[in-house]
Amino acid sequence: MTTLHLYDSQTRTVRAFEPLHPGKVGMYVCGATVQGGPHLGHLRTALTFDIVRRWLEHSGYQVTHVQNVTDIDDKILAKAAEAGVPWWAWAQSHEREFHAAYRALGILPPTYEPRATGHVPEMLDLIARLIERGHAYVGEAGNVYFSVPSWPDYGKLTNQGADDVVPGEDEAAGDKRDPRDFALWKAPKEGEPATARWQTPWGEGRPGWHTECSAMSCRYLGETFDIHGGGLDLRFPHHENERAQSTAAGWGFVRYWMHSAWVTQSGEKMSKSLGNYLSAESVLSRHPAPVVRLALSGAHYRSMLEFSDSTLAEAQVNWDRFTGFLDRAADLVGEVPVGQLPPEFTDAMNDDFGTPAAFAVIHEHVRRGNIALADADAAVVQAEAGAVRGMLAVLGLDPVQWQAGAGADTAAQEALDALVARLVEQRTAARAAKDWQAADTIRDQLAAAGIVVEDGPDGARWHVKGD
Amino acid sequence: MTTLHLYDSQTRTVRAFEPLHPGKVGMYVCGATVQGGPHLGHLRTALTFDIVRRWLEHSGYQVTHVQNVTDIDDKILAKAAEAGVPWWAWAQSHEREFHAAYRALGILPPTYEPRATGHVPEMLDLIARLIERGHAYVGEAGNVYFSVPSWPDYGKLTNQGADDVVPGEDEAAGDKRDPRDFALWKAPKEGEPATARWQTPWGEGRPGWHTECSAMSCRYLGETFDIHGGGLDLRFPHHENERAQSTAAGWGFVRYWMHSAWVTQSGEKMSKSLGNYLSAESVLSRHPAPVVRLALSGAHYRSMLEFSDSTLAEAQVNWDRFTGFLDRAADLVGEVPVGQLPPEFTDAMNDDFGTPAAFAVIHEHVRRGNIALADADAAVVQAEAGAVRGMLAVLGLDPVQWQAGAGADTAAQEALDALVARLVEQRTAARAAKDWQAADTIRDQLAAAGIVVEDGPDGARWHVKGD
Repeated sequence: MTTLHLYDSQTRTVRAFEPLHPGKVGMYVCGATVQGGPHLGHLRTALTFDIVRRWLEHSGYQVTHVQNVTDIDDKILAKAAEAGVPWWAWAQSHEREFHAAYRALGILPPTYEPRATGHVPEMLDLIARLIERGHAYVGEAGNVYFSVPSWPDYGKLTNQGADDVVPGEDEAAGDKRDPRDFALWKAPKEGEPATARWQTPWGEGRPGWHTECSAMSCRYLGETFDIHGGGLDLRFPHHENERAQSTAAGWGFVRYWMHSAWVTQSGEKMSKSLGNYLSAESVLSRHPAPVVRLALSGAHYRSMLEFSDSTLAEAQVNWDRFTGFLDRAADLVGEVPVGQLPPEFTDAMNDDFGTPAAFAVIHEHVRRGNIALADADAAVVQAEAGAVRGMLAVLGLDPVQWQAGAGADTAAQEALDALVARLVEQRTAARAAKDWQAADTIRDQLAAAGIVVEDGPDGARWHVKGD
Repeated sequence: MTTLHLYDSQTRTVRAFEPLHPGKVGMYVCGATVQGGPHLGHLRTALTFDIVRRWLEHSGYQVTHVQNVTDIDDKILAKAAEAGVPWWAWAQSHEREFHAAYRALGILPPTYEPRATGHVPEMLDLIARLIERGHAYVGEAGNVYFSVPSWPDYGKLTNQGADDVVPGEDEAAGDKRDPRDFALWKAPKEGEPATARWQTPWGEGRPGWHTECSAMSCRYLGETFDIHGGGLDLRFPHHENERAQSTAAGWGFVRYWMHSAWVTQSGEKMSKSLGNYLSAESVLSRHPAPVVRLALSGAHYRSMLEFSDSTLAEAQVNWDRFTGFLDRAADLVGEVPVGQLPPEFTDAMNDDFGTPAAFAVIHEHVRRGNIALADADAAVVQAEAGAVRGMLAVLGLDPVQWQAGAGADTAAQEALDALVARLVEQRTAARAAKDWQAADTIRDQLAAAGIVVEDGPDGARWHVKGD
């Protein structure tokens, strides 16, 4: 039996996973800057770490998953001012949009989701500590900076010598000592509201983006923790800066770094600034949530995911194949409980969360199950259906759960089930009595209502077209 | 035309509402202490202020609605320790349960929902201010107290002389100077985790409950704001203490106090501690959300609401009457847009949010509409249906919106609609052809699927039983 190995993007090697504390995993994932609503790129990152967490939990670990909400930054302040609403209300309304999209996609809520503005005292403590240790200073304009030259280890996460580092673009304030230095704390800019300022020993101001993640990860996971995750675009400068802050503060910080690749369209990164993004809402309103989930988790998390209409069409075909098999199996042997995972699936997931190989295993078992169905071999059908449900479940794709969860309008669904079952029965009786006209009438009635009836060796099955 | 008057529970009079800033209303509502999930009492309070807010917005005000989450207190720390999970994770999981119940009930999310732990700096500022002004002191054990004897105005909210005040029960720490004093800041107790402590000029500790609301209301609504709401049990000591803190700090604080009465069972207040509560989940899983909403908003918010099975049964009957009328009206004149409010409804709502009188107006218009339906008087039906929809909408009960929102499983609903429509058509044709047997067969088929068909002057209508 294999054990979990994962690609650590600092050492750039696949390493055996060994948690700091046996049986427990602390995982910090960079969450959203809630300047606007979520797009598919955000959802992919969240889904990547949802699968990581589910697999860790399946493997027996108790996972503490902390994911921040960046609820103050330049863009939030600017956009809220433009919209004429308080920045904190602007941030919260988008925080809610993220939650709704996560919920729709079956992404488990993190153990805790702290807001940056809720952790100013911890940030001030960290900054004081860095100043005391000679790794930070207060600029003339009241900004506080991390001093990159003071920390020879800087650049190691992204494999750059400190001299090669090109400064991040939003750090071009005038009171830096070195262009590579970055802001820990920002003095207020003209026109920014009084509510966006906190008192500090160095004057009024607000958090720098990088500071919050170092402060909050330490607060909730301790000075050293297991996994730090985020989107690939956060590696530099965000994670390099986080790492500099936390390690210069004397903390062990992160043992494994994981980065999730982008969603691309025509090869370009999907992003707000490029304007080539698909909003979560636009996709989730047009496609069933498990299909979107399948589309976003089919590629390996470290590969770019080129997204087009055919990505969703392919996911729909796969979803229909999975659910079609499980439905037919249930017709033969009754609903099958979640079964044990085949070893090849476990191997695939243990190999750096290899979802493409994992889905290949699922397809192979569906293939075997379909053969067994054709042979009406109930024992094999039962075993394969259990395995398929088990594998889908650990990926957050258990069709039985999705059906139950989607049944908000249960009364309508139940009425539909009962009505269609009765009509299908009558049609079967009519066929048995060779009353072809009656049988066809019923079939036409159902078809006109968008209900597709399929005759198989085990009797007729039906589903709502496009459901 | 009347203008809005509301009962101010400080002056104990119905007062004309005049906002601090024309066209705007700042409203602070005490939210949940997230030690456990919500019960019907919590939902009633939230719903009361949801209706207040909707009515204010309908009246043309721009409402800033702030509602706190108390995410740290003695009970949260104790229960989390017992369950073996971090207190912040315990708090957040229940915060999520509250959100889910609010969402299910159609309660609009507040403009901002700050967490207590996110506002420690503001609380420390307030405490420092009170110490400086001679209204607070640090006890020997490190607790910081508000000095009740230092503030002659204490007791005015609840109409008590300062000498008559009986101390709140959770304030019995040993280092008070006066038994009536209450904690602004609490020194750590033995066994409390390090994450539940913040550094202050007076040593480590954590927020007192009352402090947070004074700090956060000022932060988000300013030193003086319009409405402060909460459950009736919060009047004393919580709101009395809040008022003492904020006014002793030199702030104008609240212009109108509003308190929502309890949900009772057999005359006793529904509460966690008495164990006689109905959880939100247990009620919402067994009854349609708009029916629960109707049941909780039927009584005036200042009256106790005695809750039993018949409360929900009565609400179901009323809901069926409203939706039945609107359905029949739609069959005659097509779907009716939200119409203008009858003046008597506006009068009822302007009279301290008088929902019982407001519902009486709705019933009266349904009655008139039903008479017009019997007469097939399309013009009157149209007018009454628009008025009824308009009145229900402003109370968060627009059936069209509820139907759309409940339609998560749209494909199934659409298929059901199409299928039933076709069967009802066939039945009508069979009846027209006097083929009673065929007509009855179809009716039986539908009945067996839980679909009720009713024949009326305008043709047959149907609905799913219990939907």
